Amino acid sequence: MSEADWPDIAGRINPDGSHVGRVRVYFEDTDFSGVVYHASYLRWFERGRSDWLRLMGVSHADMASQGAFAVRSMAIEFLKPAKIDDVVSVETRVVEVLGASVRLRQAAIRDDVLLVEADVRVVFVTMQGRAARLPAHLRAKFTQK
Amino acid sequence: MSEADWPDIAGRINPDGSHVGRVRVYFEDTDFSGVVYHASYLRWFERGRSDWLRLMGVSHADMASQGAFAVRSMAIEFLKPAKIDDVVSVETRVVEVLGASVRLRQAAIRDDVLLVEADVRVVFVTMQGRAARLPAHLRAKFTQK
Amino acid sequence: MSEADWPDIAGRINPDGSHVGRVRVYFEDTDFSGVVYHASYLRWFERGRSDWLRLMGVSHADMASQGAFAVRSMAIEFLKPAKIDDVVSVETRVVEVLGASVRLRQAAIRDDVLLVEADVRVVFVTMQGRAARLPAHLRAKFTQK
Amino acid sequence: MSEADWPDIAGRINPDGSHVGRVRVYFEDTDFSGVVYHASYLRWFERGRSDWLRLMGVSHADMASQGAFAVRSMAIEFLKPAKIDDVVSVETRVVEVLGASVRLRQAAIRDDVLLVEADVRVVFVTMQGRAARLPAHLRAKFTQK
Repeated sequence: MSEADWPDIAGRINPDGSHVGRVRVYFEDTDFSGVVYHASYLRWFERGRSDWLRLMGVSHADMASQGAFAVRSMAIEFLKPAKIDDVVSVETRVVEVLGASVRLRQAAIRDDVLLVEADVRVVFVTMQGRAARLPAHLRAKFTQK
Repeated sequence: MSEADWPDIAGRINPDGSHVGRVRVYFEDTDFSGVVYHASYLRWFERGRSDWLRLMGVSHADMASQGAFAVRSMAIEFLKPAKIDDVVSVETRVVEVLGASVRLRQAAIRDDVLLVEADVRVVFVTMQGRAARLPAHLRAKFTQK
Repeated sequence: MSEADWPDIAGRINPDGSHVGRVRVYFEDTDFSGVVYHASYLRWFERGRSDWLRLMGVSHADMASQGAFAVRSMAIEFLKPAKIDDVVSVETRVVEVLGASVRLRQAAIRDDVLLVEADVRVVFVTMQGRAARLPAHLRAKFTQK
Repeated sequence: MSEADWPDIAGRINPDGSHVGRVRVYFEDTDFSGVVYHASYLRWFERGRSDWLRLMGVSHADMASQGAFAVRSMAIEFLKPAKIDDVVSVETRVVEVLGASVRLRQAAIRDDVLLVEADVRVVFVTMQGRAARLPAHLRAKFTQK
């Protein structure tokens, strides 16, 4: 069974250029308080960013020769908790593309109810771990609609 | 966007009664050695068991009044590593249904190559944390083909 | 072997009322990029908050009859990465105590170098999941020096 | 604050050559069932193996030029659950040293009650990902008492 058999696995790019993926809540995502552990939303947002890049044709392997994206800062609001068995949509949209960083807005939504949202700044870092300007071909992808 | 928009999210029951789901490898699953962290496969196998139960109509919520499944023992072989961006199939099949436990065979497979396999025994425990006989309606589901 | 044999396990309260704990970086904290996965710092900060409460005599069990703390929002800066085998200090200090929430400043530091810092707002929620005023005895603990 | 200020952070080597470390149970280790998530014990056992190697003078950095240890197989019994706030001892002892692998017995124990135990086989793999014979200086360390 290959990736072609799972057409939805990387989520979808919406007409407005934003990305939506979906996450199922499993045991691993929850804690003894009965709801989802707060750091799990960061894992989900990272999956959203990876799949969004993937659908734009940017793979970790492609980038590896030049560098990689890393989260530089994040402001996150935990509004309502997700629970075991929930299906949650994870939305990712570009807010601003700067010389060496990209600002994203990400949200976790269940049945049209906003659960968690984050303002995320990712930077491009070289293989030596230094912040660098975005390569032009990536920059072009993030600014096109 | 609701669960109906993601038909594949819980994987599929095969004609022989086994379950197959798929897992994408993200940053969260890997470690600094460059490949998937060994405990990540246990998280994936748990997703497989949850989705298999889900497709048989057994939800965590349904069971909660009577008890829940817990892993009692596991023998696991790590044969080949999965890597970032891989799509891995997770297969789950019943080996044996006993009075108070179920033995499962689970495997993580990439492009027909077996990466990890596990022999898993799950037991039914009451809400008081005591092992108990499987409720008859669950037992019936596991033994039908 | 009991808890008494590990005097340092919950870290220490400093003379100024702040808390410091230490974290060792293991495989589980890293990802394939070679450094610590960004969400791992949130796990470490949660350990810091739990141990700080513990040393002030507030256990999860004590609170459970009245409610629990939950993270309401967090602004986090990832300045430099921690690496495998590092020992990192996690500092937690109270910035402000309001009626129903507490603002904390948390930092991950390695050899006097600030790696990650966060401004964290935690709220008190009842067992029914509703935000509530801080019980007076907790409020008193957070405001004393 | 440096590592020297936390003398207990890597646990201890017992007179019989076994290693004991301690783990505090935090939110991150638990799931919505109210107890510790089963895969968390694997993370704890990995911490035990890393600290045991560390106290024997084998660092990940030292080994990196030659290779690294990887778990090849594991048989694990989940006997009783650990709970939030528990302090758990993690014991690691060598059972057998073979040409290219080491068999270990690991246990998670709370107040003299065995919670989880595992028979673990770790292999030495080169930087190219191939199983290899144990370097002589490592072999010597594992066989001395």
